Amino acid sequence: MSIITVIGSGAMGSALSFPLRDNGHEVRLVGTMLDRAIIEEVRRSGYHPTLKRTLPDGVKCYQLEELGDALDGAEFIVGGVSSFGVDWFMREILPELPPLPVLSVTKGMFLTPGGSFISYPALYASEFPDRAFCAIGGPCTSYELADRDQTHICFCGYDMTLLNTLRELFRTPYYHISLSTDVTGVECAVALKNAYALAVTTAVGTALRNGGVEHYNSQAALFGQGVREMRKLLALFGGGDDNIVYGAGDLYVTVFGGRTRLLGILLGKGIPFQEAVRQLEGVTLESVVIASRTAQAVRVKIGQGLVTADEFPLLLHIDDVINNDAAVDIPWEKFTCDGCGV
Amino acid sequence: MSIITVIGSGAMGSALSFPLRDNGHEVRLVGTMLDRAIIEEVRRSGYHPTLKRTLPDGVKCYQLEELGDALDGAEFIVGGVSSFGVDWFMREILPELPPLPVLSVTKGMFLTPGGSFISYPALYASEFPDRAFCAIGGPCTSYELADRDQTHICFCGYDMTLLNTLRELFRTPYYHISLSTDVTGVECAVALKNAYALAVTTAVGTALRNGGVEHYNSQAALFGQGVREMRKLLALFGGGDDNIVYGAGDLYVTVFGGRTRLLGILLGKGIPFQEAVRQLEGVTLESVVIASRTAQAVRVKIGQGLVTADEFPLLLHIDDVINNDAAVDIPWEKFTCDGCGV
Repeated sequence: MSIITVIGSGAMGSALSFPLRDNGHEVRLVGTMLDRAIIEEVRRSGYHPTLKRTLPDGVKCYQLEELGDALDGAEFIVGGVSSFGVDWFMREILPELPPLPVLSVTKGMFLTPGGSFISYPALYASEFPDRAFCAIGGPCTSYELADRDQTHICFCGYDMTLLNTLRELFRTPYYHISLSTDVTGVECAVALKNAYALAVTTAVGTALRNGGVEHYNSQAALFGQGVREMRKLLALFGGGDDNIVYGAGDLYVTVFGGRTRLLGILLGKGIPFQEAVRQLEGVTLESVVIASRTAQAVRVKIGQGLVTADEFPLLLHIDDVINNDAAVDIPWEKFTCDGCGV
Repeated sequence: MSIITVIGSGAMGSALSFPLRDNGHEVRLVGTMLDRAIIEEVRRSGYHPTLKRTLPDGVKCYQLEELGDALDGAEFIVGGVSSFGVDWFMREILPELPPLPVLSVTKGMFLTPGGSFISYPALYASEFPDRAFCAIGGPCTSYELADRDQTHICFCGYDMTLLNTLRELFRTPYYHISLSTDVTGVECAVALKNAYALAVTTAVGTALRNGGVEHYNSQAALFGQGVREMRKLLALFGGGDDNIVYGAGDLYVTVFGGRTRLLGILLGKGIPFQEAVRQLEGVTLESVVIASRTAQAVRVKIGQGLVTADEFPLLLHIDDVINNDAAVDIPWEKFTCDGCGV
């Protein structure tokens, strides 16, 4: 039995209490300043209002000012903040923590001015070089993890022995864990899918607008092109090629199970981005930030002459839709190529 | 304006009349002995009973005994038979044809005793070396092509000049055509997806059995593993790696738009294969034949020591379900790996 302190009681951080409690570990769930009502409700009734499930018996709840108590005797930290909370987590929380291993659920990458990606574990380690940072990547919605559905994700980090230890804490008959020291590759793959999930779901919106029936030829063409561009991006940013397994899987789950779908459908119906965002007030648009960052990085690389715009027609179009007020008008013909497979 | 004779008036062969007629070509649609009623109905009303759409104006219809008339002055042949019709097409029809280029819609591969795949264009060319055979691969349902939905597929063959000519006949603002001389790669990629589409859709059935709601973590895990195994198979059978674009796209469309889904859902609900097939009487089980053939080829390669069973846990399990009366019991933990991305 180990003691794990989860900082951030959003849906994903809280969902990890299911495998941990199923394995008999002590779970201490700490709310951020945005999570006060969640912690109060879980304390009162056990029910998590954004995860929409009752948490397992025995999860201990803490408000942020009780962080000290939550850390007393803790052996591992789970960083449960979203990408919007990374700055706060790094500046306000990490300096207060004992030097325990941190496993982060945060998706996305930090972008350097030179157009390179830095994964959150690498970013954290640059400030706290004496500590061990790991992250979770791969296709997993918090709801389904909480329902104990079959899930396969990857823990990535720099120390395989630590990764193995973490896997033993979390693995269950429904939560299957690969391990990888290719942190850039795993985190890059799962970040990249954001732009492409938006792209695939525009086809759903366009089909609905045109006749009310979902069509799959167009979604499949976008999915295939997404896989092609993600593989090019993995190579560009230095990630291993097999990580497309997580990229493709995470793209799949985001198209069907994620909030990004709502936005993509509105865009595909012809609604301009700013209006679509207004209609979706309250929906986290993390994917938009990550998609924009990815495109920004690629534009830097294009400027450096390392790649050409022709290689990323879909990413750059989605970026134009998000950031340059373009209407969705998928450049289908640019996906065709002669002799690509050879 | 060119004259194109389509032999086989099933859904896909007939759907190709849409881009061809939109481009002003003469389309002569010839039914096989299995298509008599289709040809009669199209002649009578214009409505195609299995495609469930009215064909474009001007499509000329022929019964098989009128093949001679249909070939008079023809410039190109479309081979519109399913994989069950390949033997017949090669033995009974090809010898009767003038030496025109043939573009085949047939999906699948021919398996050699040595466990190698031969694409249908290569198989045809082995018997008729003086003729040019090409094929269409990639994600496309006939219904959506007939609805002029956006579609991206690949024409593959051995002669890039001919492929370019064929593309000019067929390309429209909704039908986007890549070209490739990697016939093995394209055909292999789109054949391979059959086993994996069955696999992904078992997760739909299992989720429905367990609670009535579709879940995506498990589908995504299977999709990602499918992409991984398809890439290994492409390498094993000598196809170019970028063809995973067609493999992943075709997997996507088959999971959602194809008949294979019906079977996968029944299997995932725990219904044994033979019983599921009985329930689906009337549904073409081409995908089962192709999945079985792929597994058979891999087992030969395993026997030759070229690969190991550990590399294809999903394919081999699906094969056991189809051919060895195994119940669906996905080997999730076998999908995990340590250091795969590096």
